Amino acid sequence: MTRALGVAVIGYSFMGRAHSNAWRNVGAFHPHLPRVSQQVLVGRDEPAVRSAADQLGWREWAIDWRDVVTRDDVDVVDICTPGHLHHEIALAALHAGKHVVVEKPLTNTLEESAELVEVASKARAGGVRSMVGFNYRCVPALALARSVIADGRIGEVRQVRASYLQDWLVDPAAPMTWRLRKEQAGSGVLGDLGSHLVDQVRFLLDDEIETVSGRLETFVESRPGPSGAEPVTVDDAAWALLGTTRGAVVSVEVSRMAAGRKNSLQIEVFGSGGSVAFDLERLNELWVDTGEGRTRVLVTEPDHPHLAPWWPPGHVLGWDHTFTTQAAGFLAAIADGTDPTPSFEDGLAVQRVLDAVERSDVAGRGTVDLATS
Amino acid sequence: MTRALGVAVIGYSFMGRAHSNAWRNVGAFHPHLPRVSQQVLVGRDEPAVRSAADQLGWREWAIDWRDVVTRDDVDVVDICTPGHLHHEIALAALHAGKHVVVEKPLTNTLEESAELVEVASKARAGGVRSMVGFNYRCVPALALARSVIADGRIGEVRQVRASYLQDWLVDPAAPMTWRLRKEQAGSGVLGDLGSHLVDQVRFLLDDEIETVSGRLETFVESRPGPSGAEPVTVDDAAWALLGTTRGAVVSVEVSRMAAGRKNSLQIEVFGSGGSVAFDLERLNELWVDTGEGRTRVLVTEPDHPHLAPWWPPGHVLGWDHTFTTQAAGFLAAIADGTDPTPSFEDGLAVQRVLDAVERSDVAGRGTVDLATS
Amino acid sequence: MTRALGVAVIGYSFMGRAHSNAWRNVGAFHPHLPRVSQQVLVGRDEPAVRSAADQLGWREWAIDWRDVVTRDDVDVVDICTPGHLHHEIALAALHAGKHVVVEKPLTNTLEESAELVEVASKARAGGVRSMVGFNYRCVPALALARSVIADGRIGEVRQVRASYLQDWLVDPAAPMTWRLRKEQAGSGVLGDLGSHLVDQVRFLLDDEIETVSGRLETFVESRPGPSGAEPVTVDDAAWALLGTTRGAVVSVEVSRMAAGRKNSLQIEVFGSGGSVAFDLERLNELWVDTGEGRTRVLVTEPDHPHLAPWWPPGHVLGWDHTFTTQAAGFLAAIADGTDPTPSFEDGLAVQRVLDAVERSDVAGRGTVDLATS
Amino acid sequence: MTRALGVAVIGYSFMGRAHSNAWRNVGAFHPHLPRVSQQVLVGRDEPAVRSAADQLGWREWAIDWRDVVTRDDVDVVDICTPGHLHHEIALAALHAGKHVVVEKPLTNTLEESAELVEVASKARAGGVRSMVGFNYRCVPALALARSVIADGRIGEVRQVRASYLQDWLVDPAAPMTWRLRKEQAGSGVLGDLGSHLVDQVRFLLDDEIETVSGRLETFVESRPGPSGAEPVTVDDAAWALLGTTRGAVVSVEVSRMAAGRKNSLQIEVFGSGGSVAFDLERLNELWVDTGEGRTRVLVTEPDHPHLAPWWPPGHVLGWDHTFTTQAAGFLAAIADGTDPTPSFEDGLAVQRVLDAVERSDVAGRGTVDLATS
Repeated sequence: MTRALGVAVIGYSFMGRAHSNAWRNVGAFHPHLPRVSQQVLVGRDEPAVRSAADQLGWREWAIDWRDVVTRDDVDVVDICTPGHLHHEIALAALHAGKHVVVEKPLTNTLEESAELVEVASKARAGGVRSMVGFNYRCVPALALARSVIADGRIGEVRQVRASYLQDWLVDPAAPMTWRLRKEQAGSGVLGDLGSHLVDQVRFLLDDEIETVSGRLETFVESRPGPSGAEPVTVDDAAWALLGTTRGAVVSVEVSRMAAGRKNSLQIEVFGSGGSVAFDLERLNELWVDTGEGRTRVLVTEPDHPHLAPWWPPGHVLGWDHTFTTQAAGFLAAIADGTDPTPSFEDGLAVQRVLDAVERSDVAGRGTVDLATS
Repeated sequence: MTRALGVAVIGYSFMGRAHSNAWRNVGAFHPHLPRVSQQVLVGRDEPAVRSAADQLGWREWAIDWRDVVTRDDVDVVDICTPGHLHHEIALAALHAGKHVVVEKPLTNTLEESAELVEVASKARAGGVRSMVGFNYRCVPALALARSVIADGRIGEVRQVRASYLQDWLVDPAAPMTWRLRKEQAGSGVLGDLGSHLVDQVRFLLDDEIETVSGRLETFVESRPGPSGAEPVTVDDAAWALLGTTRGAVVSVEVSRMAAGRKNSLQIEVFGSGGSVAFDLERLNELWVDTGEGRTRVLVTEPDHPHLAPWWPPGHVLGWDHTFTTQAAGFLAAIADGTDPTPSFEDGLAVQRVLDAVERSDVAGRGTVDLATS
Repeated sequence: MTRALGVAVIGYSFMGRAHSNAWRNVGAFHPHLPRVSQQVLVGRDEPAVRSAADQLGWREWAIDWRDVVTRDDVDVVDICTPGHLHHEIALAALHAGKHVVVEKPLTNTLEESAELVEVASKARAGGVRSMVGFNYRCVPALALARSVIADGRIGEVRQVRASYLQDWLVDPAAPMTWRLRKEQAGSGVLGDLGSHLVDQVRFLLDDEIETVSGRLETFVESRPGPSGAEPVTVDDAAWALLGTTRGAVVSVEVSRMAAGRKNSLQIEVFGSGGSVAFDLERLNELWVDTGEGRTRVLVTEPDHPHLAPWWPPGHVLGWDHTFTTQAAGFLAAIADGTDPTPSFEDGLAVQRVLDAVERSDVAGRGTVDLATS
Repeated sequence: MTRALGVAVIGYSFMGRAHSNAWRNVGAFHPHLPRVSQQVLVGRDEPAVRSAADQLGWREWAIDWRDVVTRDDVDVVDICTPGHLHHEIALAALHAGKHVVVEKPLTNTLEESAELVEVASKARAGGVRSMVGFNYRCVPALALARSVIADGRIGEVRQVRASYLQDWLVDPAAPMTWRLRKEQAGSGVLGDLGSHLVDQVRFLLDDEIETVSGRLETFVESRPGPSGAEPVTVDDAAWALLGTTRGAVVSVEVSRMAAGRKNSLQIEVFGSGGSVAFDLERLNELWVDTGEGRTRVLVTEPDHPHLAPWWPPGHVLGWDHTFTTQAAGFLAAIADGTDPTPSFEDGLAVQRVLDAVERSDVAGRGTVDLATS
């Protein structure tokens, strides 16, 4: 029997917890994939990372990711830090020959993403696997939507409505966080939630974005910080219109000010022969209309995507299960010697669209052509 | 007892039927308003208008609206023709001193609308009432939404999502009609459905549109006409972003290609303290969220707007009841000597926004400032 | 041209208004049926009936139904009084050779219903038409459900869940009305709402009820009357289990105490190959599941039952439109010389089931076999 | 640091997997509870149990539960076998002084349940904890419903509609299983799904069942077994009416033949001041109506029951998370020296109701009084 793959997760906060959960459970649901050993959890605050490692099932903890990415007992480096650190850690891990998972967005800047793509591409030749963590590709209902579209069941796609709405910033008294500072977060809701939507559109349609127009808005311009009011330097809400290579038009709307919407990623795809619709707040359901009416498919059958390892029909999954499926996909790629998706190239493609939204907003909100700019 | 008000309806097709239905029923539900006499129905095709008049409860029929708008037994002229005839008929009726209802959109061009506003404004001084027929202001749930917003229950409005989706053009083999020819229809779905959305946004928010960017799209560029393929000269779908005087941002999306959506006008208004949401396919329901969750209000209580004359709670209304309520509002204004809403000024304000969408589309889709252009 | 059929409606309250509305509108939507003249509205309170007649479009009003049912200008007698008067008026009208519509329930007692069936049966031989007014047979979505079942699309029916829930008696302070006195109303919610459910089950399944068990409950035993507290002598809620000839089991639940349910008639029919589901609060929708998921059919297409005369797809109907369709069905039967449905026999069949529910409740709630008791 | 509690799970099939998953994850979400060690998984088929133990995170596997329940390194025995084995294993474990979890139903017979209650009651005095596994008490939305009711927000409960519908037996060709044989399963859907409903009603209302009437039905009387058609000796569907001590009436309906319903436990509770409603297919949502309309509460906030350890608002949970919460509750009781719920007494109370349903069905379906029979 081969040695289990050693995994290191960098970051122990929200995403670090979600990824740890996935590594702890992936073997129980995917017994035929390579075994995993939760080798080391990395974070800068010693008491916190020690406690998190203990709680989340890790053998060890460490303070400095530099010491970890070269360890012999680490085969996979999974990066869950804030976005401005992704580039440096991923580069080091790839250079050390480790398989790398980067939580989305790939990086905070186009330049960094482009460099990561190049390095990952070379590493690929040596069998090093890399993936960006758009976990919603692992929602069974969305994977089913992709296959419904790919099978031509809704015809040629013409129009897509995509929105991702949350409300945790509705109250002007909600405090300042690193997510609202441009230097750490890169952008606001556009990068955080808009990146998921752009990735989903590319995933569902299997098509590329060619033209972009967009608008950003900051409704609450300063918020209480530890030492008084602090300016919010990122967007609270954003809108975009995207044109695809095959002629579809996609409207995008994201917000952290949408009172009453907690985590509502909604996508509706209209084709020449039908439509599909989805809402993340009801993640086990897909609506499919091929002419007879809107059909609510409870996506919990064993022959639906990603569901065979789980429970009987009607026994619904939750948000965190997507990470377990994502981890399984990465392990399968390692085992099969194939490239996992979404790739760093996918991550870069998303960043290029988000960058164009920002450029459009600055320049009067007219259309930006990605092919020529 | 005073003489009943004589009504003439011009047009006996879809809207002519809906308005006739309203004039036939308004007295039964509003006994305290002035009585109405269905005097004459007007149309160009003699056998058709004769048969329609007989069926829909009219005393007489006529071929030429010019003969009708000056008749002594006609007090109200209700114009339900295609848009390119609105201007001429309305002018004649106002000049004859008749109260005038014009089905939306007010006219096909800004110039025509501006002239109507001017003439109606003068006529108003002489007690002549005029109204444009945005019947969805009479949907009880939308009227309730307006009052929820006006009462400050959702705080300051920041973000609005408005869409109106139909699917009767999904099939490229669907035949050519006057609605797809620019010279008759003025525009495509933008004018037809977009006008309802712009009016609703102004109605719900009690706010004005200041900036506009937009895009139009024709997905199916020619359709079978009586003598072969004919070019479609209007838009199949349209998008806009609107900025209001008080700082709200409104996204608008309209389409006749949204497979599976039959008549789905959806509006969601997000404020600093909550939200409201509506879908015309479930026109008796309003969703209100003021912090505890999304509440489905079945808008059928006697103390809800417009509902006192109708049925007990839970006995739902249909689409056509909005026209009866609209007719009642017009009669009440005549009786009270007040000005009915929406006014021709409201109709013009909508036309200005739609015009700006078209200009933005032509000019690279950037922002148009209504104050300066 | 033949003379229009003269109609008399007896009763001008809730049902009298709804039926008047239907007679006033039926011609506009069904021009090929016999013409109708709203001849006379009958009620005991002179000022009230005079005012109602004027408002609702009637030529005349009258105080005594005895004078009316024999008039030469009356061809149709439509009985909308409380249930204890149905029997006497219907008998007189049938004896006078008039076509008769009786609002449900047919009568308050089995004996009365049996006699009406006998008399109507004889009158039928002379071309006299009779119908009981279960208007929900005219809900397009329910008529579609019946045809889905009849076409075998959900297989053999096994299990039905039927409920009709309202909440107007939730508050113990809600005042006494004739509907809560056994001598006038016959029974409480069982007869009022339960009768609709039993009729629907027979209509949808085209099957007969054979066995019945049931329970009645009065949660609030006295209510404020004009001269102090008065005992409630009917049921607030009722339950039944019905067995059909073909082996289906039907659960029935009705209540006027179901807080938050305004007028919610829900039916779900499960067969060996699928299911259908309906809720009157969303009366334009039918849910059909034949294996792929639950499909929401927006029942507003011209080829759906009863919809051809109305509006384009997605332009929803309301509760009162069912009465117009019901009136059209009655007129069509008169014109064609056929027997309209539901017949008095159908009305009696419903009464027999309701009677068995009451007997079961009294006798320990065990099963009553309709064939042997 | 104290030694981790050693756990043994008996059974590795559906429930054995779900409970294993809970023991593997409980520490990560509840770090302040006693640590757990997955000591041994027990099953009769050596290759299968060996493989399952390896996959599901167990240190060891064993064939004979008798060897396991007395092991020094086992503190908790968690019984996930078919119901006919619960009694014997639980007795042995209690006698060995182990804490015991029994998956529902407690046992297949009243006698067995009564004996277990007695033995567990004595063991309790010695600090031995026991619990029956009605995991739906751990659904956050249902726990919230209980607290809404307990706080009096819907007033005095009068009427409850409870159903649990699945469809895995719709097809008459679905094969025979142990669940359809009375000697192993005890009963059919009544015990399997009805037990959940009865427990939920007692949990939500904090009230006791006093009267019971019921009916059982087997729609498909034989099914293909390994050696030809085999009789189905349990119920496919069941109905009951329950009366509670405080005067509420509860309707219960359960089925494995409800085409299109995959795992739909629905409960609607109507009180004198409002209502709550729930559907397990949307397990993160609770509907609450206290007079303004039906409010959909997305039960994912940190201050909702059971949710503090999980994810941010809107990041929904799945079915299997309920078992983790259940395990945490059991560990907390051990740590605190309190008695966990639901107790064996609760399990017995449920069995008494189910037994009364069966007796009512046999005896003409009339009412059985639990106090006197």
